[in-house]
Amino acid sequence: MEVRIILVEPKSEENVGAVARVVKNFGFSDLYLLNPPDIGIKALSVAAHAYDVLKSCKIVESLPVAIANSAIVVGTTAKLGASTNKHLRMPFFSPLELKDKVEGKRGILSILFGREDVGLLNDELKLCDLVVSIPTSHEYPVMNLSHAVAVILYDLSDVTSGTLELARVEDRERLYMQLKTFLDEIGYREHKKAKTLLMLRRILGRAELTTKELQTLQGVIGKAEWRIGVVDET
Amino acid sequence: MEVRIILVEPKSEENVGAVARVVKNFGFSDLYLLNPPDIGIKALSVAAHAYDVLKSCKIVESLPVAIANSAIVVGTTAKLGASTNKHLRMPFFSPLELKDKVEGKRGILSILFGREDVGLLNDELKLCDLVVSIPTSHEYPVMNLSHAVAVILYDLSDVTSGTLELARVEDRERLYMQLKTFLDEIGYREHKKAKTLLMLRRILGRAELTTKELQTLQGVIGKAEWRIGVVDET
Repeated sequence: MEVRIILVEPKSEENVGAVARVVKNFGFSDLYLLNPPDIGIKALSVAAHAYDVLKSCKIVESLPVAIANSAIVVGTTAKLGASTNKHLRMPFFSPLELKDKVEGKRGILSILFGREDVGLLNDELKLCDLVVSIPTSHEYPVMNLSHAVAVILYDLSDVTSGTLELARVEDRERLYMQLKTFLDEIGYREHKKAKTLLMLRRILGRAELTTKELQTLQGVIGKAEWRIGVVDET
Repeated sequence: MEVRIILVEPKSEENVGAVARVVKNFGFSDLYLLNPPDIGIKALSVAAHAYDVLKSCKIVESLPVAIANSAIVVGTTAKLGASTNKHLRMPFFSPLELKDKVEGKRGILSILFGREDVGLLNDELKLCDLVVSIPTSHEYPVMNLSHAVAVILYDLSDVTSGTLELARVEDRERLYMQLKTFLDEIGYREHKKAKTLLMLRRILGRAELTTKELQTLQGVIGKAEWRIGVVDET
C-alpha cells in the first residue's frame, strides 16, 4: 500500500524534521502536515538528508483533506488512551497487527499522529477506521512523536502490496450518510441513532470494504428504501 | 536478559535525553554513557518523564568498563557499514533475529550505539559478539541515534528471560588470551595469527557459550598444552 504519514497539529518544528528523516529511512516519502508550526532551518537541520521529504510535504488545513482518497485511515495513540476512547468502540491493533491487516491490499494507507501533548482528539479518532497503539511500558507509555513514527514505519517497511483495491474514504462516507438517512426512514429511535451509526462506521471501517462490496451494500440499502416506499427503484 | 544500552561518545545532549525517554518507554532502565557531552537542562527536557533514567545513568571512560559482566555484547551499525567492516567477519543480524537469539537466555545484554556521525570504530566492533543492523532504505540508511534505539528496544521489549546462564565477557576474554598463547605454543604462522584469533573470537562470540562450556574449552586447551609439553597437568 501507499503509506501517507499525517502529523496533526505538531507543535515542534524539530519533531517534524525528525519524522521526515525516519520517513525516508524506511523508504517512504508522503508526509502531510495539518496546521504545522513554521518549518524553517531547525526542521531542515534535524531532517538531515531527508530535506526532500520535508520540502515536498503537503500542508493542509483540515483532516478530511489530509485523508482524501485513503483506503484505510489509522489513528495512533498511547496505551493510556485505551480507556478514554472506549466509547468509540475502536479496535486496538499493534503495529505488527496493522501490518498483517494491510498485507496484500492496495490503496492509500493514511496514518495519523496527534499533537505532542494531547494526541488525537475524539472527533479525529471518529474518522479513523482503526487505532494502532505501540506496546510500551505502563510506567511511561507516551513516546516521543518521531519515535512512534519510527517504530510503526519499521514494521511497515517490508509490507507487500497486492491487487485488492479497497474503497476510498469518500465512498465510505457516502455509505455512512446513506445509512444515516436509512435509519431516519425506518423510524429508528432518535436517542440510539448516533451510537448505532458510530458502531456501523466501526464495523464497516475495519472490514476493509472493496469498491465492489461497497457498491453492493449501497444497492441493498437502495432496494430496502424502494421496498419501504421512500424512493423509486432505479 | 538484562538489557544495557551503551552510547559511545554521543555528541548531542538532546539525543542522550531522547534515548533515556525511549529506554523508559519500553520498560528498560540501564543506560551507560561513554565520554558523553555535559548532560544538562536540554537533555532533561527531552527525556521528559524519564529523568530518573537519565539521573541514574552510568558515565564511564572506557569500553571494557562499559561492557563489564556482559553475557552478550552487540554492536549496532547502519547498513552502509556492512562492506567496510567485512574484514571483521561479523555476522549481521536484524533486531528480530537478535531477539530470537537472546530469547530464553540469562545475563546482561549490552547494546552499543556509536557516535552520531561515524558510528562505532572498528576497534570497538572487534569487542562485539555480533552486530545488529536495522533494515532501512538504501537511499537513506542512517537513522537518528534515538530512533535506532527505539526500533531495537521495541523488538526486545517482550523478550522472555530464561535460566541458561551465559559466560561473561571477561571469562571469554580469558579464553581468547589462552587461545592466543596456544597459537604461539604450537608455532602457528605469525602473519596469520591476528586474523585467525579474530575468527575464533567471532565464532565463539556468536556461539553464546555458557560458563560450563567455556570451562570445558579451557580444559581442552590445557590438556593439549600438557600433551605438547608446555605446561604441567593440573
